Amino acid sequence: MARKAAIIGGGVIGGGWAARFLLNGWSVSVFDPDPEAERKIGEVLANARAALPALSDVPMPAEGKLSFAGSITEAVEGAEYIQESVSERLELKHRVFAQIQQASHGVPIGSSTSGFKPSELQENAADPSVIFVAHPFNPVYLLPLAEVVPSAKSDAKVIENAKEILREIGMFPLHVRKEIDAHIADRFLEAVWREALWLVKDGIATTEEIDEAIRMGFGLRWGQMGLFETYRIAGGEAGMKHFLAQFGPCLSWPWTKLMDVPEFNDELVDLIAGQSDAQSGKYSIRELERIRDQNLIGFMRALKERNWGAGKVLLEHDARRRAAFHDEVAAVSDAPLVVANMQVLPGWIDYNGHMTEAKYLHAATETSDAFLRLIGAGMDYVAGGHSYYTAETHIMHLGEAKLGDRLTGSFQVLSMDEKRLHAMIRVQRGDTVVATLEQMFLHVDMKAGKACPAAPEVLEKLRPIAKAHEALPRPEAAGRFVGQRK
Amino acid sequence: MARKAAIIGGGVIGGGWAARFLLNGWSVSVFDPDPEAERKIGEVLANARAALPALSDVPMPAEGKLSFAGSITEAVEGAEYIQESVSERLELKHRVFAQIQQASHGVPIGSSTSGFKPSELQENAADPSVIFVAHPFNPVYLLPLAEVVPSAKSDAKVIENAKEILREIGMFPLHVRKEIDAHIADRFLEAVWREALWLVKDGIATTEEIDEAIRMGFGLRWGQMGLFETYRIAGGEAGMKHFLAQFGPCLSWPWTKLMDVPEFNDELVDLIAGQSDAQSGKYSIRELERIRDQNLIGFMRALKERNWGAGKVLLEHDARRRAAFHDEVAAVSDAPLVVANMQVLPGWIDYNGHMTEAKYLHAATETSDAFLRLIGAGMDYVAGGHSYYTAETHIMHLGEAKLGDRLTGSFQVLSMDEKRLHAMIRVQRGDTVVATLEQMFLHVDMKAGKACPAAPEVLEKLRPIAKAHEALPRPEAAGRFVGQRK
Repeated sequence: MARKAAIIGGGVIGGGWAARFLLNGWSVSVFDPDPEAERKIGEVLANARAALPALSDVPMPAEGKLSFAGSITEAVEGAEYIQESVSERLELKHRVFAQIQQASHGVPIGSSTSGFKPSELQENAADPSVIFVAHPFNPVYLLPLAEVVPSAKSDAKVIENAKEILREIGMFPLHVRKEIDAHIADRFLEAVWREALWLVKDGIATTEEIDEAIRMGFGLRWGQMGLFETYRIAGGEAGMKHFLAQFGPCLSWPWTKLMDVPEFNDELVDLIAGQSDAQSGKYSIRELERIRDQNLIGFMRALKERNWGAGKVLLEHDARRRAAFHDEVAAVSDAPLVVANMQVLPGWIDYNGHMTEAKYLHAATETSDAFLRLIGAGMDYVAGGHSYYTAETHIMHLGEAKLGDRLTGSFQVLSMDEKRLHAMIRVQRGDTVVATLEQMFLHVDMKAGKACPAAPEVLEKLRPIAKAHEALPRPEAAGRFVGQRK
Repeated sequence: MARKAAIIGGGVIGGGWAARFLLNGWSVSVFDPDPEAERKIGEVLANARAALPALSDVPMPAEGKLSFAGSITEAVEGAEYIQESVSERLELKHRVFAQIQQASHGVPIGSSTSGFKPSELQENAADPSVIFVAHPFNPVYLLPLAEVVPSAKSDAKVIENAKEILREIGMFPLHVRKEIDAHIADRFLEAVWREALWLVKDGIATTEEIDEAIRMGFGLRWGQMGLFETYRIAGGEAGMKHFLAQFGPCLSWPWTKLMDVPEFNDELVDLIAGQSDAQSGKYSIRELERIRDQNLIGFMRALKERNWGAGKVLLEHDARRRAAFHDEVAAVSDAPLVVANMQVLPGWIDYNGHMTEAKYLHAATETSDAFLRLIGAGMDYVAGGHSYYTAETHIMHLGEAKLGDRLTGSFQVLSMDEKRLHAMIRVQRGDTVVATLEQMFLHVDMKAGKACPAAPEVLEKLRPIAKAHEALPRPEAAGRFVGQRK
């Protein structure tokens, strides 16, 4: 039976929370009086379905059930976690918490607020100890950060429970130890925002120039190391103290106009909105969302390959779920194993909009890599000096994949022995097979550069799958040579 | 003859500039009186050599010659571009410019300064019109941004020339139209830095917590879209004006302590340096640099696949250099035609240093594309609605290619008719065949989506080659199926 989360308040943030829970196998009940809530959440969910699975190297759990409740009471019934994402009005939030706590007892209630401190949220609550801030970042279904801010009245056990739940849905709960206006990250965003408004207002730079100044330079750095680790490197061999001594004096220079706040009048709004249209108006918001999501996937996968930052969070999340998947393998191993979820990215297509040949093989490699990880022959095993090498491949191009297509890769063991693994990989779009790839893998001692038997623990995982796959019909493409008549 | 750049002032920034010029084929003369300069620049160059080529999908030009000059006069002799990266002391910079301009006339002089405006740099100069700010971001050899800031005294042609040179070494020159203290990006960095110092000083968060708040959330966003494009999305369907209306009021809330500057005393320095040690002390600065560089490569390659942001800069840089790299076509038709010359690039290898499977197929595609161009079925032909599609491929992996290996691709016609082309492609390193790829191509009408005869002029070129290749021995790998005993 799936665990249940209640989402109070739809919209982009509430929808993002709903998507994260659903795609991680939780059932979700949403309460939002907006008649458009169902449509809006459906759109966020569609984005999330197209993005979140691309971060996973473990098959996703079955999606949870999404329902829309007619009242807060109905939404929170049976929920193990409640997330509030209503408008930033304190009296509204207080009313919501009061209604929640008439029906729910002892369940963690996280608030997506950026504007209120937990002690403010807790005022007059029936049980303040379970109310805290869980502040996410858009897109909630991709970015791992959730600032978890308790107050002195918070129950430490509830906070630990909430953090564990956030980890279970793939997030990185950052425990903010002292409550403060805007928590941590938004204080930085506010500082940059304020300075950026001045630059636009004073005609120094347009919105586009400001965006380039960010994403072509320090923005790239901050996706993988923060302010201090970056400056630690800048200090070089002389270290952090040297850096501080060097740049400390800048604080008193007139480098920002932060002390003043620009007047936020119609003129400034029109200026910014007009520049933003000129910069990004050629894309719809939906297009921008998809571009952003694909870029974030690329970044996070790059970090995942390196077990660093957000990528470390992803690897830990995979490890947590792999255990669950292993339990399911026995049950599903009499069918080709669907081990890879991919999407045709812009870099995968040629000037004609067709997926390039090499990318079909790339898709197969993603699939065999995922299978090898599944049987315990992943990167750690390779680091130990052994690996399965591909000796031979036969590819049949049966269909075409296009930009944005979601592809799955399935792996069927045709035969095996201690040293050899013969498999059929199917790359599919839905039920349509776009390519089959028959491959022969040899298990090698990488140092000696020759074939050798695989480790017993690998063979132990591989054999039952091979045994189960013996019952499958032999694929038509198996044993075929190039040019053979059908 | 390689073009020459002069680098005045070594260190991390000057070394980064030197590396960028050298790896893009320029000769570089460095002047720095520090006796450690040669060692320091050598270390930056080693990092750059391990990183920058990994962004390229075109063979890098031969590295330029690095020399160390005994004087500024010697360094700038014959230089087409001069970059100053000495300490941030205005009188020192003025002295450097005076010495440069005794020996050099009309050559662009960029300054790496973050602290001075171009009009300040130009004071008392013999020729102020060629002095401007070219402010880069560490690591200079990877991050594309260079803020180019002229003053009213600048010569517009010199600035355009300098921007073109920066593009030639793979950078993104951002023209800052109005000079201002700290240019653009550092104003944001300063704002965040100031707020972060308060958070540490007030005990709200440690350096590590602050770094996580950045890199797990908005830092990832800013590597690919800046502040305004990100907020445009947050505004959703309602648009930028809606977002501005919603968040405008926050400006007057107590979300930052920006108005005050924390006292920068020993206590604060020790607190930060100690927290930074606890956070990052397990890595040496060299290790952190390599981790950072590998992460940045991952990010930038992800953006390159998507032709977005910094990745667009990389693709344009590749296109600029591709013209310089010529495929040599041997016109001997009674042997397999060697039609492609390639090099194993850093992006072609996996974490074990092996060329990835998909890249063998990529090498074959480069070969077949070159062959198709040879018989008049290249991009123009495809634009006319016809193309050869690959139906089937059989790959045998016979050897391994490693980083930097020069590979050739040869094409042997096994058989053909009006609609079909059956070929054997060999990917070789010297005489060693590392892979054979047997392929069946079908000639298709792309609009109708079905096979059709090739154009007479294409067949006319293809037939004599096929005829000549009939005399060649049939390759052993032809007609082989996966797993067949040898």
